[in-house]
Amino acid sequence: MKARIKVTLKNGVLDPQGKAIEGALGSLGFSGVESVRQGKYIEVELAETDRKKAEAAIDEMCKKLLANTVIENYAIELDEK
Amino acid sequence: MKARIKVTLKNGVLDPQGKAIEGALGSLGFSGVESVRQGKYIEVELAETDRKKAEAAIDEMCKKLLANTVIENYAIELDEK
Repeated sequence: MKARIKVTLKNGVLDPQGKAIEGALGSLGFSGVESVRQGKYIEVELAETDRKKAEAAIDEMCKKLLANTVIENYAIELDEK
Repeated sequence: MKARIKVTLKNGVLDPQGKAIEGALGSLGFSGVESVRQGKYIEVELAETDRKKAEAAIDEMCKKLLANTVIENYAIELDEK
């Protein structure tokens, strides 16, 4: 089973990487960009075939390693292969 | 209009960051992890309200700045606000 995880900064947390992209887009001549936020995208391939168990495992991975839950949110999508 | 962009490494391109996560998950006792790939996730808020134009603008941003199309793929999702 494949899990797709999006880790994003919580609202209100400063995002210098996003700001840098915003500035660079402006320099390249793109107008109308109101804000940019950058996060991480992680794909995990699991041997587990049970959806519930896979979801629980991924959730724990996010809490323990993949996301810093003090400043980041995460969203999980599961795909049967 | 809000665009959500996923930038992922093409198949066959080495992903040391993904490998590091895979190793760390193993050390934490998570078994059954077959592979991990890490990419970027970018949210762009646009003033543009026309869907077609917004899509074209985002596509150009990806080609010019956000993704390195030699080694990376990107996927765009557009959201009406």
